[in-house]
Amino acid sequence: MLLTLIGRREILKTLKDMGERKAIELILERLEKMPQMPVPFGDDVSAFVIGKDKLAILKTDMLVGETDIPKGMSLWQAARKAVVMNVSDFAAKGTKPVSALVALGLPSNTTQKELEEIAEGLNAGAREYGVYILGGDTNEASDIVISLSVFGLAEKRFLMLRSGAKPGDLVAVTGFFGKTSAGLKMLLEGLEAPKGVCDSLIEAVCMPKARLNEGLALGKTGAVTSAIDSSDGLAWSLHEISKASGVGFCLDTIPVATEAVKFAEVNGLDPFDLAFHGGEEYELVLTLNPKSWSKAEKAVREAGGALIRIGRVTAEKQIVVKIGNRKRAIKPKGWEHFRRR
Amino acid sequence: MLLTLIGRREILKTLKDMGERKAIELILERLEKMPQMPVPFGDDVSAFVIGKDKLAILKTDMLVGETDIPKGMSLWQAARKAVVMNVSDFAAKGTKPVSALVALGLPSNTTQKELEEIAEGLNAGAREYGVYILGGDTNEASDIVISLSVFGLAEKRFLMLRSGAKPGDLVAVTGFFGKTSAGLKMLLEGLEAPKGVCDSLIEAVCMPKARLNEGLALGKTGAVTSAIDSSDGLAWSLHEISKASGVGFCLDTIPVATEAVKFAEVNGLDPFDLAFHGGEEYELVLTLNPKSWSKAEKAVREAGGALIRIGRVTAEKQIVVKIGNRKRAIKPKGWEHFRRR
Repeated sequence: MLLTLIGRREILKTLKDMGERKAIELILERLEKMPQMPVPFGDDVSAFVIGKDKLAILKTDMLVGETDIPKGMSLWQAARKAVVMNVSDFAAKGTKPVSALVALGLPSNTTQKELEEIAEGLNAGAREYGVYILGGDTNEASDIVISLSVFGLAEKRFLMLRSGAKPGDLVAVTGFFGKTSAGLKMLLEGLEAPKGVCDSLIEAVCMPKARLNEGLALGKTGAVTSAIDSSDGLAWSLHEISKASGVGFCLDTIPVATEAVKFAEVNGLDPFDLAFHGGEEYELVLTLNPKSWSKAEKAVREAGGALIRIGRVTAEKQIVVKIGNRKRAIKPKGWEHFRRR
Repeated sequence: MLLTLIGRREILKTLKDMGERKAIELILERLEKMPQMPVPFGDDVSAFVIGKDKLAILKTDMLVGETDIPKGMSLWQAARKAVVMNVSDFAAKGTKPVSALVALGLPSNTTQKELEEIAEGLNAGAREYGVYILGGDTNEASDIVISLSVFGLAEKRFLMLRSGAKPGDLVAVTGFFGKTSAGLKMLLEGLEAPKGVCDSLIEAVCMPKARLNEGLALGKTGAVTSAIDSSDGLAWSLHEISKASGVGFCLDTIPVATEAVKFAEVNGLDPFDLAFHGGEEYELVLTLNPKSWSKAEKAVREAGGALIRIGRVTAEKQIVVKIGNRKRAIKPKGWEHFRRR
């Protein structure tokens, strides 16, 4: 009995040992929950009720120099990306972001030119998605920290949550995966890419796009049963929807970008890994009512994007790719802070 | 002509040279302004219109380990304070904060106990003022960063801005100043305090209170013509109202705490400096229509606080203390990041 107790009690010493997700769990356990939270802890955005069917939508996401700004990304690009990654969460919920605040941590030797680059990147990222920056806070820090908070309004019935996927629903994504993983391997590990795809891979890292038009169009169709963005990797996103909705997935298509396939070939990598286990990619991962597929597909097309069907939701809670007779499980691996990779 | 141009062009190299306020100016110049901003850039909170006379109120404020957590302040206290300093800005606008998001930057060697302390401090700070934390983001960083974003709703006509002070208005504060400056000198410079005031000075630093009840009560009276909190020091707050309202102040009272006077005596310091040129103090600094003074005074008393009259608003744009025949100017000195003090 005693042994069992000891065995079950996890000995967690530091964040490095426990990883980001356990850390988040420990934090959430200690927060008193607002009664009637319209969006549960851990979804892409947070919300509170401000009127009949009306919600205030809130999101904060921080970018830290050492961990999140790879060599080769300019400060302008980093600042723009800090906005894009927050907007992407709004896109995944089908909600329009309206305004943002920026809290900056900056080393005291930051130059005027660097500061101006950051400010211009922030404004560019915001205006690209119709957002206005309304204010913020400037602080001294040993490393660059760009902490964005983005706000919007939503009608509850249009909000796309992570929960809600049902067996039989279609699984779809808004783009092909793997370019960011490949680009990061170029910037961080010095891997080389074949001519012709090089620029596209670096651009995927340095100039990510949020699928806001697609998300807003999908929100209005009522076709989406669950949604998430792929910022922690496609595999992780599927596992999050699986957990929140209590379902599994059987994919018949690996949505891997041709550029990533070429990069994988040259470097002896598995394109499956590049597509599923990346991160910092901002596609939407969705499940849809099959009856509304063509309506959803048309809405996304008219918004300038593409809806790519990759499989089905299953009652069985496993996540697999099954192409012909080959079946492969998709593990819950993805980007996680604190853990050394 | 050429000489004049060169003379006027400031050569600003780094944040250390230019200071926080110049940095903020450079950032704001680069942000496209939202049309019809109900609260101008640089006020204590930001806002956007969400309906007839209805505003969403937003605030972000970041706390950074090295700069903002003095030795002697626990992580629980630091996390609680990160909430309090944001709530204080809502108090200064007469607006109720409702919910908050937290973006954390944490070193990977943060222990589980430290993480739990931070989470509990955040929750305690929020619940103390009726706020719920709805979500957040966790990141790896070289130093502890606690970036809070707080949200609320307001009716435009009740919002107390920095602009609006008129000559003849009364100037008032919600408490006595200088304890935080004294406490920080104890923690950072090792100065000693006479027995009997020691605990109170340290508590002022480690357990600051936001004057939310007072601010909400004042907002409802309609008596306040301008308001700000004193987080950058009383002198700085007066200069900010002076700038935003286009007025000056003639004070006849120095609102210095008796504990700060005792500390100043023992250490050969000027209590005037402790009271005016501190920071990290969260009193409200207000101007009021003299006709509504007794209504405002009563409202604050009923909210459990005190309204202390310290002078008058003047048309002349200088800020002075005049007691008997002695007149002393109050310089715009206060807490500023990046500048070495």
